[in-house]
Amino acid sequence: MFEYKIIGKAGRARAGIFNTPHGELQTPIFAPVGTQATVKTLTPAQLDELGASLVLSNTYHLYLRPGDELVAEMGGLHEFMQWPHPMLTDSGGFQVFSLAQTRKIDDDGVTFKSHIDGSTHRFTPEKSIAIQENLGADIIMAFDECADPNDHEYIRTAMERTHRWAERSLKAKRRDDQALFGIVQGGVDPELRAASAAFISSMPFPGIAIGGLSVGETKAEMHGMLDVVTALLPENKPRYLMGVGTPEDLINGIARGIDIFDCVLPTRLARHHSAFSPEGRLNMMNASFAHDRRPIDEGCGCYTCRTFTRAYLRHLIMAKELLAGTLLSIHNLHALIRLVEEIRAAIQDGTFEQLAPVLLDKWSNNASRDKSGKVN
Amino acid sequence: MFEYKIIGKAGRARAGIFNTPHGELQTPIFAPVGTQATVKTLTPAQLDELGASLVLSNTYHLYLRPGDELVAEMGGLHEFMQWPHPMLTDSGGFQVFSLAQTRKIDDDGVTFKSHIDGSTHRFTPEKSIAIQENLGADIIMAFDECADPNDHEYIRTAMERTHRWAERSLKAKRRDDQALFGIVQGGVDPELRAASAAFISSMPFPGIAIGGLSVGETKAEMHGMLDVVTALLPENKPRYLMGVGTPEDLINGIARGIDIFDCVLPTRLARHHSAFSPEGRLNMMNASFAHDRRPIDEGCGCYTCRTFTRAYLRHLIMAKELLAGTLLSIHNLHALIRLVEEIRAAIQDGTFEQLAPVLLDKWSNNASRDKSGKVN
Repeated sequence: MFEYKIIGKAGRARAGIFNTPHGELQTPIFAPVGTQATVKTLTPAQLDELGASLVLSNTYHLYLRPGDELVAEMGGLHEFMQWPHPMLTDSGGFQVFSLAQTRKIDDDGVTFKSHIDGSTHRFTPEKSIAIQENLGADIIMAFDECADPNDHEYIRTAMERTHRWAERSLKAKRRDDQALFGIVQGGVDPELRAASAAFISSMPFPGIAIGGLSVGETKAEMHGMLDVVTALLPENKPRYLMGVGTPEDLINGIARGIDIFDCVLPTRLARHHSAFSPEGRLNMMNASFAHDRRPIDEGCGCYTCRTFTRAYLRHLIMAKELLAGTLLSIHNLHALIRLVEEIRAAIQDGTFEQLAPVLLDKWSNNASRDKSGKVN
Repeated sequence: MFEYKIIGKAGRARAGIFNTPHGELQTPIFAPVGTQATVKTLTPAQLDELGASLVLSNTYHLYLRPGDELVAEMGGLHEFMQWPHPMLTDSGGFQVFSLAQTRKIDDDGVTFKSHIDGSTHRFTPEKSIAIQENLGADIIMAFDECADPNDHEYIRTAMERTHRWAERSLKAKRRDDQALFGIVQGGVDPELRAASAAFISSMPFPGIAIGGLSVGETKAEMHGMLDVVTALLPENKPRYLMGVGTPEDLINGIARGIDIFDCVLPTRLARHHSAFSPEGRLNMMNASFAHDRRPIDEGCGCYTCRTFTRAYLRHLIMAKELLAGTLLSIHNLHALIRLVEEIRAAIQDGTFEQLAPVLLDKWSNNASRDKSGKVN
């Protein structure tokens, strides 16, 4: 279990297979996010039809609601949400820092107030692992601290704490049917990133994540950190770039040796009426689409593009019909899942290096971010 | 085209086939409502999987947004919303009276203000038919006036106006690939209902609707009116009871000779967390379901009941996840579609009269209405 087999390489890009108790992950792979045990607006049947495999769910949210013990009692996350394929949970750390109302961090853990009802809770590495064991995903994450990449002073403190917490997370783990991944931190400091990559790589994690990117730094900084880190990671473990990203981010990440991605972007954009397309990101509410008989993307084979015109999608949005969010989620997830599949095939048949610039050109202008890291 | 063939009878109940340009309607039939060219929260693929056949859409809404001319330009309603099976549009009259901000009725028509932007519009029988010809449903409705059933004075005025408008609707019709149904009015007055049934039956409509029921009268009054009206309607035309209803209403209506029903109830209840069940209508937000491993209805074969526990559905509702509305819509529509299918089979094999009391008992307590006619 949890062996990673590389079946193709192209430069630093890799195609591989990671075995989990709920089936093989064919990497590189993009994981839709199902924060509250559901990929927003989609049934598992629709996700399955999209060819989704790995789905991520959020420990912070599920701990607060419905509670990890309830999920365990219902047979675990796979059974609860009826997703029969591989799943991943994060450690809850990132959400504690980004969502909770107030939090106080110390070397032992973090105390925070729920964003739902203001109640007080405490996460430690041991608690995060216990929750994730209750949830029962195939891949679970060490508890880490994600610091502001521009706070150079604090980044070292957060990284060192992350390392101590990685050791405690590993020690706390009881179940042997879950792969615990360690997380590399270090902000945008190449030396810290290198130190963190070496430290985390020295531990017996079956996979390694890169955290603290796509949180406000520039693209050039993100690429620089990936270059530093992946060069130092062991070849025979999958690498997971957390919370990334756009079509361009996936292409650039795979080219730098990343195997696993997750992001809320496709479903969040869908709820804000935006669609990925080779024409750039389209705002489907735009009046220019009112009479447009074309699908979102004539080259796309998703249910939405096979079935509906831009005019109809715009009508649903103008009429505030929830189906718009469903149909745009299907399209946006399909776009990223197929993009990564196309890249995987190219890595295997040796054409990735020619394909990468073509894909970067095709998928440019499909997302922009402001400095806060929020999609805009 | 538009022939109605009766293939089974049981007392006054009938099983039949009504031919339309988009396929056969197997009656009795329950039509989901797709007000704004979408059955809320469901894709056409999901509706198809439910075994839905006839879908109703609302002329008032589509006229205002996106506009019937746009729908016509996009190939008509079937093409626009990608529903390949039969469709029905109402005349817009009911919504003008129930939704528009202000309206002024005269013998020629009604002037009203849009509930969306307050703009002024005017519907006449000729205008309603022209809009419905642009929309292109298989079954279209004569423009009528639905009066408060308890305003006995006004009911006669509204009925007489409805009769004159029925004549004008028939005269205004141009397309021969749409079946125009006349509408019987008359409130809860048996003499007016009888007069209206006789008048509308005397005209060359291929089908006859009964309007102005389920709008605030008692169940006993509704049943009394159905008894009066269906006894006077021609056998060889389908009868459509507009805006009805609950599981009990369907059983009682079919027993009184009704062939076609539509209602927003299953999808509206779904958005308010309610599910039809043999235990009565369930509020799926109820805390008693938090740990409940059962499906909504153990005897139900819908996707939702085959797949998810009550505990999961409650979690989705508590977490404000839109998927809850989708899954409950699937269940509620499935319940009514299968109920009517079960009745149809019983009419054909001669067991309906034994089955009806069993079904009434099974599906009791699945809806209540306050005096305004709103579902509560």
